[in-house]
Amino acid sequence: MHNLWQVHTDKFINEKESIMRNGNVYQIANGYMGYRGTLDEFGPDELVGITLAGLYDRVGDAWREPVNAPNGGFTEITLDGREISALSTRIKKHHQSLSLGNAVFERETDFESRGKALQIKSTRFLSADEPNLGVIKFSFTCNKAARVRIKTGIDYNIWDLNGPHLLKLTAKKKSGTLLVQSVTGEASKKVTVAEVIDLHFGKQTHEAGGNKNLRVIELDAKANQTYTFYKYFAVVTDNDPVKTSVHEAAIKKVEEAKDSGYDECLSRHNAQWAKRWEHCDVKIEGDDEAQHALRYSIFQLLMVAPVNGSANSIPARALSGQVYKGAIFWDTEMFMFPFFLYTYPEKAVELMRYRIKTLDGARRKAKTEGAGYRGAFYAWESQESGDDACTYFNIGDPFSKRDLRTYFRDKQVHISGDVAIAMWEYFKVTGDDSLLLEGGGEVILECARFYYSYAYFNKDKHRHEILDVVGPDEYHERVNNNAFTSMVAKATFEIANAMVEYLRRRHPDKLKSLVKKMDITGALPVFREMADLLYVPQPDETTGAIEQFDGYFKLKETTVKELKARMIHPNEYLGAGQGLAVPTKVIKQADVVMMLNLFKDRYTEQVKKANWEYYEPRTEHGSSLSACAYAMVAADIGKLDWAYSYFLKTAKIDIEARYKVYVGTIFMGGSHPAANGGAWMTVVFGFGGVKANAERVVINPRLYKEWKSLQFNMFYKGDSFNVKITRNDVTIIADPSNKCNRTFVVSGKSIECVPGKRLFVGYR
Amino acid sequence: MHNLWQVHTDKFINEKESIMRNGNVYQIANGYMGYRGTLDEFGPDELVGITLAGLYDRVGDAWREPVNAPNGGFTEITLDGREISALSTRIKKHHQSLSLGNAVFERETDFESRGKALQIKSTRFLSADEPNLGVIKFSFTCNKAARVRIKTGIDYNIWDLNGPHLLKLTAKKKSGTLLVQSVTGEASKKVTVAEVIDLHFGKQTHEAGGNKNLRVIELDAKANQTYTFYKYFAVVTDNDPVKTSVHEAAIKKVEEAKDSGYDECLSRHNAQWAKRWEHCDVKIEGDDEAQHALRYSIFQLLMVAPVNGSANSIPARALSGQVYKGAIFWDTEMFMFPFFLYTYPEKAVELMRYRIKTLDGARRKAKTEGAGYRGAFYAWESQESGDDACTYFNIGDPFSKRDLRTYFRDKQVHISGDVAIAMWEYFKVTGDDSLLLEGGGEVILECARFYYSYAYFNKDKHRHEILDVVGPDEYHERVNNNAFTSMVAKATFEIANAMVEYLRRRHPDKLKSLVKKMDITGALPVFREMADLLYVPQPDETTGAIEQFDGYFKLKETTVKELKARMIHPNEYLGAGQGLAVPTKVIKQADVVMMLNLFKDRYTEQVKKANWEYYEPRTEHGSSLSACAYAMVAADIGKLDWAYSYFLKTAKIDIEARYKVYVGTIFMGGSHPAANGGAWMTVVFGFGGVKANAERVVINPRLYKEWKSLQFNMFYKGDSFNVKITRNDVTIIADPSNKCNRTFVVSGKSIECVPGKRLFVGYR
Repeated sequence: MHNLWQVHTDKFINEKESIMRNGNVYQIANGYMGYRGTLDEFGPDELVGITLAGLYDRVGDAWREPVNAPNGGFTEITLDGREISALSTRIKKHHQSLSLGNAVFERETDFESRGKALQIKSTRFLSADEPNLGVIKFSFTCNKAARVRIKTGIDYNIWDLNGPHLLKLTAKKKSGTLLVQSVTGEASKKVTVAEVIDLHFGKQTHEAGGNKNLRVIELDAKANQTYTFYKYFAVVTDNDPVKTSVHEAAIKKVEEAKDSGYDECLSRHNAQWAKRWEHCDVKIEGDDEAQHALRYSIFQLLMVAPVNGSANSIPARALSGQVYKGAIFWDTEMFMFPFFLYTYPEKAVELMRYRIKTLDGARRKAKTEGAGYRGAFYAWESQESGDDACTYFNIGDPFSKRDLRTYFRDKQVHISGDVAIAMWEYFKVTGDDSLLLEGGGEVILECARFYYSYAYFNKDKHRHEILDVVGPDEYHERVNNNAFTSMVAKATFEIANAMVEYLRRRHPDKLKSLVKKMDITGALPVFREMADLLYVPQPDETTGAIEQFDGYFKLKETTVKELKARMIHPNEYLGAGQGLAVPTKVIKQADVVMMLNLFKDRYTEQVKKANWEYYEPRTEHGSSLSACAYAMVAADIGKLDWAYSYFLKTAKIDIEARYKVYVGTIFMGGSHPAANGGAWMTVVFGFGGVKANAERVVINPRLYKEWKSLQFNMFYKGDSFNVKITRNDVTIIADPSNKCNRTFVVSGKSIECVPGKRLFVGYR
Repeated sequence: MHNLWQVHTDKFINEKESIMRNGNVYQIANGYMGYRGTLDEFGPDELVGITLAGLYDRVGDAWREPVNAPNGGFTEITLDGREISALSTRIKKHHQSLSLGNAVFERETDFESRGKALQIKSTRFLSADEPNLGVIKFSFTCNKAARVRIKTGIDYNIWDLNGPHLLKLTAKKKSGTLLVQSVTGEASKKVTVAEVIDLHFGKQTHEAGGNKNLRVIELDAKANQTYTFYKYFAVVTDNDPVKTSVHEAAIKKVEEAKDSGYDECLSRHNAQWAKRWEHCDVKIEGDDEAQHALRYSIFQLLMVAPVNGSANSIPARALSGQVYKGAIFWDTEMFMFPFFLYTYPEKAVELMRYRIKTLDGARRKAKTEGAGYRGAFYAWESQESGDDACTYFNIGDPFSKRDLRTYFRDKQVHISGDVAIAMWEYFKVTGDDSLLLEGGGEVILECARFYYSYAYFNKDKHRHEILDVVGPDEYHERVNNNAFTSMVAKATFEIANAMVEYLRRRHPDKLKSLVKKMDITGALPVFREMADLLYVPQPDETTGAIEQFDGYFKLKETTVKELKARMIHPNEYLGAGQGLAVPTKVIKQADVVMMLNLFKDRYTEQVKKANWEYYEPRTEHGSSLSACAYAMVAADIGKLDWAYSYFLKTAKIDIEARYKVYVGTIFMGGSHPAANGGAWMTVVFGFGGVKANAERVVINPRLYKEWKSLQFNMFYKGDSFNVKITRNDVTIIADPSNKCNRTFVVSGKSIECVPGKRLFVGYR
């Protein structure tokens, strides 16, 4: 088996498709920026991209998307006047790897050119210690004496999906530092890249032209001698909390890095990564394939977690490019957040602060969508302000060549409840109420207020209903009483009520001022009625099946296969007004099953089983969010083989990079952090059977048969625990630094975990 | 100017399109059946059709549609062994005409064949006195002696859109009568055609074959001698109230007709037509074009009015063929019914009885659509049972070649209110409560109950709302708070309440048993609340504009012309999920303006003007129902030139036959009785300014400037009045047979019309 702490390949396939997919698999990131896994000599045609978190720009009517920075990592080399590149030179050997332990990317390529062999080796990382910083060690060795010219510096030929976003690009050299300065078009935000190198050979000149700001180093290289230099680049923007000007800050950052030196930078970087893994790793004994896929998934999440204090969140394609507008979807709260909540709460806080920061945007959206609502209707595709980046026309129709009207933006109202649920989970699992007091409580109340103004009362049936929505299954738009959405809305009212009760007891003054500020006194009793009388479709008394929405059971019975056979264009969309799936029971992704997972405590095993079996064969899994929901519920009901196969599907999506990269004409390649989060959830919540609430942590192990043990750490109420599950027993070690005893319930047995003590419980 | 009592042409254009259009323009009908305006020798390729009212059949999964009967009017002729036909023989002269006075169709064609001239002349009518009967007089004259063979009888090569509907077709000859017997496929209903002729020349033999049951008459015709024979055919089906077997009844009908003879049959027919015109004609002095178009419109309605006692209604394409499944739409109540109500109430009764007959179908539909409703949800496309013939996929998409999902059937809920309003109008204008007691009251209460179960209460805004509907403007589907629909629903509650009050006062026992039978006691107080709190979009305080539905004002501004320029396929549909009009303000037809017309007493002239001017430029008039609404409101607000031009549009639609005949692959040619009714309404309600309510008849004349006078009859509460409007005054003659004084209000002046007296009122 391969090294479980890296991904690597010994092939370089000179095809666009392979280069694009490797760009995703080998990307590195540090929460501030992502750097696609491309080679040093590559440019925009090979989709080189340094995508910045939280900085967006829009050109004309095109999609608003994150800004890609100039590439400060660019280096190209010529041997005896001939350009050496993986794209054009004969390659004798190539190896590239990405270390999961510290997000270091390495490439080593042996070229042959006119009878000479040149080896290029580079090592690159984005500092986990200094978010603006990228560091590269670049070496080359020729087997014969040769004239070598290196061009290294900043390439500002930028790959953009809907750019160009950076205007007034200017290249400068200030003392030893290369600078590329620019401003974004929409908001005139400065974006500057500085670069310095640490080099001790050759003759250096400066060359600017062709949108590159370069140093040219010429030397007569000796045979078999290895020449090495170090590159430091920094990206600084107006979004950064810098005290000086942006370009001064950038210069300072690269100079300081150079002064510290490569080894010191790497060691600080490694220290950060070591801390992360120490608490976040999950160990699966007896199944290297699962272990590797899971570790890669966790790695992806750790790389893209927002910088502390940034109040940024994680886009649906993380920092792997501009796909999906760099927007934050429900993916974050429902699929990524739990991982951070249990293992890395300081990042969970940032994700929640992002929703607090964008509350005003959610209020604006509520006011302007549909008939105009009150409260907070969070953006379906959220960027820095919380205004919705989602368009009303999302998907290209291959028949008419027009964009199809979809209702993701205006009808996928479960997003607000998803946020409220995550906010409350944060409080329940961490026990930390500061977030509630610093805006989180307001978020919850505004989400409840939104549902109150969105819901209607059915007098004939004496119940509130949530009408005209799109649930997770986006193939059936504008449905009434979608089980998932209604349940999320109901939970939002319950959470609002519980939170008000909590504040009334613990922070009455804060409650008073919040209620006053929000002018919401009268609504509070109504929220109680809403929680009681809001209709959520219930299991059928005979079959146990829950109707996904009003009328779903009356739709046409068909199979996914039969449906796909009826497609007459490979890119035709199955949903929207007229898609093939619309009149049928075929669904895009987990919907009722997603609800059964999210609210697993509220449903019997029989109901979960009935619905899993009903919906599973009718699900296309047209979204990467689907597999983990089916995996978790499968684990919950003891279908462990199914759980395992869906787990591999969710865990290997990025490592195998076999996903679709085009829908219609829309490029959608990139990483899948929600599926990564789903992989972690499937292991810890599914096979581990972990579920924490405000009172206790419940563990009902469902260990997969090939696994000897499963071991992970988790935080609960600020205390740290190591849990090891074997076939017959569970060992829980409460960290000595823990503050309190905590209650764990293992397969029904309640136990107290005392700080510093190890507990051993049999569960068979 | 042409004869104002006929349409005619001196051309025969041997093209499919022209033959099809003339088939519509020259059709005759008698309420029992329609006979397209084709020539004697034509067959199914020329769209010969004898369409039966109220008899439907379905083949497999194809559309259910009315049955076309075998053609008992078929005659072809050969001259010296050569077939003579307008399709193949040289025509020297051709004339055909349709008399509006009595629905008699005549053709006279001079053929030339091998140097001989043959004139064929035929006269045809469907008896207005004996609904099953068709009568033809056929003559020919040759300028030279010639061998002539006539084949006449029954052609059962039937033109069907979605047939064949008639199975087990058998041809017989019994004594002198030809018979074609058959049964429908779906319900095994017998359909029989009998034919006899009255002929006194030649040698007759019988020939059956090629789906024709024929007599062959051979003779040596003398030069310049005219030979004439008479043909009588009868269609009888299991739907007829016959005492004998269907074929015996058919034989009897043709034998009796033959015994009576042609002249007697024609004279009885003419007597019926004379009676109709006596009360139903409208005279426009000074404008022959308007007079002729209006008369043709009235003629169309008179021809297709259901047979007394049949409880049939009038399909959207009347009896001109199988288009639109021969189904009854809201067209009947909203556009045709008023004509009958004011001029021919015995037919208005049949239209209403049809809705009573189909109440159970409407109840079934309510139960099964959407989430399941209570009460009566009338079929959007109604056939004999009231179950909905409308499909969920109605319109072919030229891009994907698939059928588009439309929401006509399940969301066009205004249909129930349209029925309730017509039912109540009948009572208000006739003063006759018998219909209410014989099922009409139940219809009204069931419609109110339906809206009660369909409506939702918006707690946040403290009002009931009608959500998720399609209004008259079918380009914007699934909208909330459509002004037209909500107003119709509100009116339905008001009507239900007024009717309950009326019954309580006048027929308390009937009310008691109705309420008990319907188990509706508790709902009655709720209907009062519904009438009060049901939200109907109101005029904007500044502009006066009423938003057609929630969000309409936020749609994209564009012009009809610009929108059409963006079409990339001539047959692409502008509505449904993805049509070009959907995101724009372009509407298919009058919607808010339709409401302002229907509820003209509730809105100020300023509001009507504001909305007419707002919506008129945004209306495509993609439906033949649109023009008359704009015409009537234009008259109402004094825009008489506009009213006139929209009037001509609605009045001339069938006479000019310029409408579209294909939408996608769907044939939709035929007559437009709703537009015909709209023409009458525009003249009497619009230019005449007539509006009756339960207390009085209001007349606010808006005479068009080119008209010297406008004269019409009307019934009010069973009494008859002749009204003549000139430029300055109104003359009302109350028929001597009237039973009571009736109040008329002419331009604000209230006057009492005493039986037998003439009143003269100036209004300038």
